[in-house]
Amino acid sequence: MTVTIIGLGLIGGSLALDLKARRFADRVIGVDNSPQHRDQALERGLVDEVMTLHTGIQEADLIVLAIPVDAIKELLPLVLDYVTHQTVTDLGSSKSEIIESVSAHPKRGNYVPSHPMAGTEFSGPAAAVNGLFAKKVGIICDMAESNPKALEMVTNMYMAVNMRLVFMSAREHDHHAAYVSHISHLTSFALALTVLDKERNEKNIFNLASGGFDSTVRLAASSASMWVPVFSQNKNNVVEVISTYIEKMTAFKEAIASGDAKQVENLILEANIIQKTLNQFS
Amino acid sequence: MTVTIIGLGLIGGSLALDLKARRFADRVIGVDNSPQHRDQALERGLVDEVMTLHTGIQEADLIVLAIPVDAIKELLPLVLDYVTHQTVTDLGSSKSEIIESVSAHPKRGNYVPSHPMAGTEFSGPAAAVNGLFAKKVGIICDMAESNPKALEMVTNMYMAVNMRLVFMSAREHDHHAAYVSHISHLTSFALALTVLDKERNEKNIFNLASGGFDSTVRLAASSASMWVPVFSQNKNNVVEVISTYIEKMTAFKEAIASGDAKQVENLILEANIIQKTLNQFS
Repeated sequence: MTVTIIGLGLIGGSLALDLKARRFADRVIGVDNSPQHRDQALERGLVDEVMTLHTGIQEADLIVLAIPVDAIKELLPLVLDYVTHQTVTDLGSSKSEIIESVSAHPKRGNYVPSHPMAGTEFSGPAAAVNGLFAKKVGIICDMAESNPKALEMVTNMYMAVNMRLVFMSAREHDHHAAYVSHISHLTSFALALTVLDKERNEKNIFNLASGGFDSTVRLAASSASMWVPVFSQNKNNVVEVISTYIEKMTAFKEAIASGDAKQVENLILEANIIQKTLNQFS
Repeated sequence: MTVTIIGLGLIGGSLALDLKARRFADRVIGVDNSPQHRDQALERGLVDEVMTLHTGIQEADLIVLAIPVDAIKELLPLVLDYVTHQTVTDLGSSKSEIIESVSAHPKRGNYVPSHPMAGTEFSGPAAAVNGLFAKKVGIICDMAESNPKALEMVTNMYMAVNMRLVFMSAREHDHHAAYVSHISHLTSFALALTVLDKERNEKNIFNLASGGFDSTVRLAASSASMWVPVFSQNKNNVVEVISTYIEKMTAFKEAIASGDAKQVENLILEANIIQKTLNQFS
């Protein structure tokens, strides 16, 4: 099986590594706009060869788009124009707008929209690692719109990298993703901005940054080129979740400002439930 | 050296383990209101013996208060009433109110206010671990108000558990701690409340909870009995930082809602700076 991966960053590069290691692919072709990324991907052995988009598509059995969601939305219709028998999937973090962009395409059945919920705050081919997807959740959306053969191939790809698959509609995906992934990044960005705003003396930020701050602010290193288009494509859900989040933070502010210790305690005890919920299923 | 630790939870228990392991203490006495905590601390070998408060103080060279900050504020004056030659320190996350409560005490010089910036989201003697403090930052406040002998003993205690010490005023401590520690916990609590509010179907929370969410929401398991009094004692700083945080989150909301991709990008690029700042000093 030949897999062509378009976009050799953290996600595309890590997938390339795993698909070879798990022997799902005997040949991995890389496509990337950046000569630097192509060189790094070859040097690190992420891919066997690099090609132009057109040749990469022709040679592939499976084509994977691992680029920012705005670029996916532009490129996906063109990729489907080229394909004959090939299966195409994308790994974007928002799904509805991307799927709409090819809803009337004659090759829509060859395309399987997916989202592997795995990543780190780093980016580029240098950030690619083995085993990034293991035991994480992969989502496949609107399965009835894909050909059974294409669906099987993408499902097998995720099984090969040891993901736990969940099937749902793009609409559900975008709603849930706003609540458990997109808002996490926003809280981290806002935390970084808050601290940077006040702590002009950089040494103090460092000195006082203990375990709690580190882990909460970690995602604030995440890439703008990835996240700006996700927030744009999933605008309605993201704005809804930010509004709820601001309400919760305001509830803390008011309870603390008015010295209502009982209410602060209630809010914390309610928040504590999240860990029980997460542990229950892990 | 005999050290008496009052409060055998995560922090007190972990300190007990390290002070014995590093041979700073040849005898560690535990004092705790809870019979269950006393039993667990003895069974886990965190302390050599458990005693009443009064006897624990009499037997000690160094007394460490590792209890919630509201309890410290109540107990510290009584502890100082009992001491003769002993040194006393507390490990509370807010400092000004605690220090004020003993500012006129004749034994004020025996007391060294401190705050080891280390911890996990767990609590109780079962959560105590070796090496919790290593390479983390410990803060000692208002050093000029403590006797040199007391200051030396507490400094040596932190050196023994491999902390990096920073000296500052209680006022500075409380301001900085609000920005790099207290707000991290609040963002995590608010995130948990936001998700719990929307995701009535618990299975979905779990399914979609990838790496990013896990680490950002981790602190939401933190204990109410510890944090409610910290937010209360550090009210002014905490309310100020929440206000700034809500402003930043509102800036994201407005930029996303109005489709201003350039502004969303600017905010993220500015937030990215935090990691460079943190890495620069680590």
